[in-house]
Amino acid sequence: MSTTANTSRSVLVVGSVAFDRIKTPLADSGKILGGSATYGAIASSYFAPTRLVGVVGNDFGPAEINRLRRHDIDLAGLQMDRSGDTFFWSGVYGEHFASRTTLETRLNVFANFSPALPEEYRTSPFALLGNIQPQLQAQVLDQLAPGAFTVADTMNLWLDLARPQLLELLPRVDLFILNDEEAHQLTGHGNVYVAGPKLIQLGPKIVIIKKGAHGAVLFHPEGLFALPAYPVTQVQDPTGAGDSFAGALIGALAAAGDTGFATLRRALAYATVTASLTVEALGVDRLETAGRALIDQRFTELVRMTRID
Amino acid sequence: MSTTANTSRSVLVVGSVAFDRIKTPLADSGKILGGSATYGAIASSYFAPTRLVGVVGNDFGPAEINRLRRHDIDLAGLQMDRSGDTFFWSGVYGEHFASRTTLETRLNVFANFSPALPEEYRTSPFALLGNIQPQLQAQVLDQLAPGAFTVADTMNLWLDLARPQLLELLPRVDLFILNDEEAHQLTGHGNVYVAGPKLIQLGPKIVIIKKGAHGAVLFHPEGLFALPAYPVTQVQDPTGAGDSFAGALIGALAAAGDTGFATLRRALAYATVTASLTVEALGVDRLETAGRALIDQRFTELVRMTRID
Repeated sequence: MSTTANTSRSVLVVGSVAFDRIKTPLADSGKILGGSATYGAIASSYFAPTRLVGVVGNDFGPAEINRLRRHDIDLAGLQMDRSGDTFFWSGVYGEHFASRTTLETRLNVFANFSPALPEEYRTSPFALLGNIQPQLQAQVLDQLAPGAFTVADTMNLWLDLARPQLLELLPRVDLFILNDEEAHQLTGHGNVYVAGPKLIQLGPKIVIIKKGAHGAVLFHPEGLFALPAYPVTQVQDPTGAGDSFAGALIGALAAAGDTGFATLRRALAYATVTASLTVEALGVDRLETAGRALIDQRFTELVRMTRID
Repeated sequence: MSTTANTSRSVLVVGSVAFDRIKTPLADSGKILGGSATYGAIASSYFAPTRLVGVVGNDFGPAEINRLRRHDIDLAGLQMDRSGDTFFWSGVYGEHFASRTTLETRLNVFANFSPALPEEYRTSPFALLGNIQPQLQAQVLDQLAPGAFTVADTMNLWLDLARPQLLELLPRVDLFILNDEEAHQLTGHGNVYVAGPKLIQLGPKIVIIKKGAHGAVLFHPEGLFALPAYPVTQVQDPTGAGDSFAGALIGALAAAGDTGFATLRRALAYATVTASLTVEALGVDRLETAGRALIDQRFTELVRMTRID
């Protein structure tokens, strides 16, 4: 479907496609659409043509497929494994979303997932290695043509379970995204301005440390960039905020066709405001329906509320 | 000493002048110069002619006087009470400065302090009500000519001990500064973007909520402004950071001769970088010796590291 012009700015998103059940102090979601690739691809799709690589099982039906198709997400890389159900995760958030506890994880068909890139995906100029095992993220890099701009996301689980594999991955990616707690865990430094340069020493050219409601810091060879978060007064569900952040970031880079420092700063602002939408409803709902106009409106507001004349 | 031009932009600073003994995970300061008016007035003096109102006792000698005079601080309002020693405070910081415990407080001559403004101070166009009892802050307002731009700082102690008096004070000041924990304590809301408007409802025209290493947010009738903190990689002593912040803020407003939204945003950036210097050494030392050039350099860096083009 893509034109040549579109393909040259396509974003490949790999990660989990899942069903989640999320309990918060305010609600119980029941079984809903989730997964790092789902959030990441929808967020990216607001900015650039997006391709999804992942796996789903028997319980992933036309309704879910249509939700992704509605965002023009290319699903040629979405494997349908009929041997079982889709990856399922259930978790509960504590008061004020200060903590998250996993209640249940059923890997299902994800247990045998091996990302396989359709031939036309291998030349994707932008690739988001969404939050999954670093070994699987590496398999995607193995299949990508040289020259792609690669962004890797992660989570504390992989710092615990697959640290050597994560450390092997980092020198192979352009941009590494993690949150302040993960940066602390990985470097031993709780001060983000100390941790950032330590992370660069691990290999990625660029690092973004997210600080939740306190914004994010970009560590780039040309300097630092610090951005407050877009103000959110009522968080409903933080699930997928990081995935949306990463998806919007790489989508905005792809749309600009550039990964320079100035473009990265703008992309970080788009990432922040897109994540702010995600957390305002349970699951993917708000991200899905927000629309580009609202993202742009928040972007303009965020630029205005951080400007010193 | 002041010219007419200078007087029209003078800053009045009222607060405590003290000796502190500060224990940190890294050092024990011994008996050193401290107090909210000391930090506030030195910070303000980098920007505008500054007048100090406070009280000291027998142990406050020529050495301390000279440290203030070196910053051209007008000391006509500094009372010398020969009936006892100067206010003394001793405290200890926990690991990573996450907590602070008071070890000893000796009010000494401060117990009988009643701020009395010399006649020429009453027309000060800018007044910082530094962190002392709200009752004493109110006494300063009673003596000030109408039309002064007034900034009030506070701390958790007064929220506990003198909440009614603080609530009486707030409608009388233009700008109220507090940190995120105090904002939570005073409004019951942990989200600063919820707490800010609640604080405005308490009476001040403008509110600044400080978030320590995470920056600060300005709530103004014309809109929001959010600013990350200037990066500090090695905190030595957070004592006086808030006082320096407030002093630099009001000094920068006085220097500009304006209190509009754009000027306030710039003043907040000056406040942030001045506080960043204070915390880099024990006590007043770094603030005292930093110099305006270093403040300006950090201001320029902070503007650059927060700009989205």
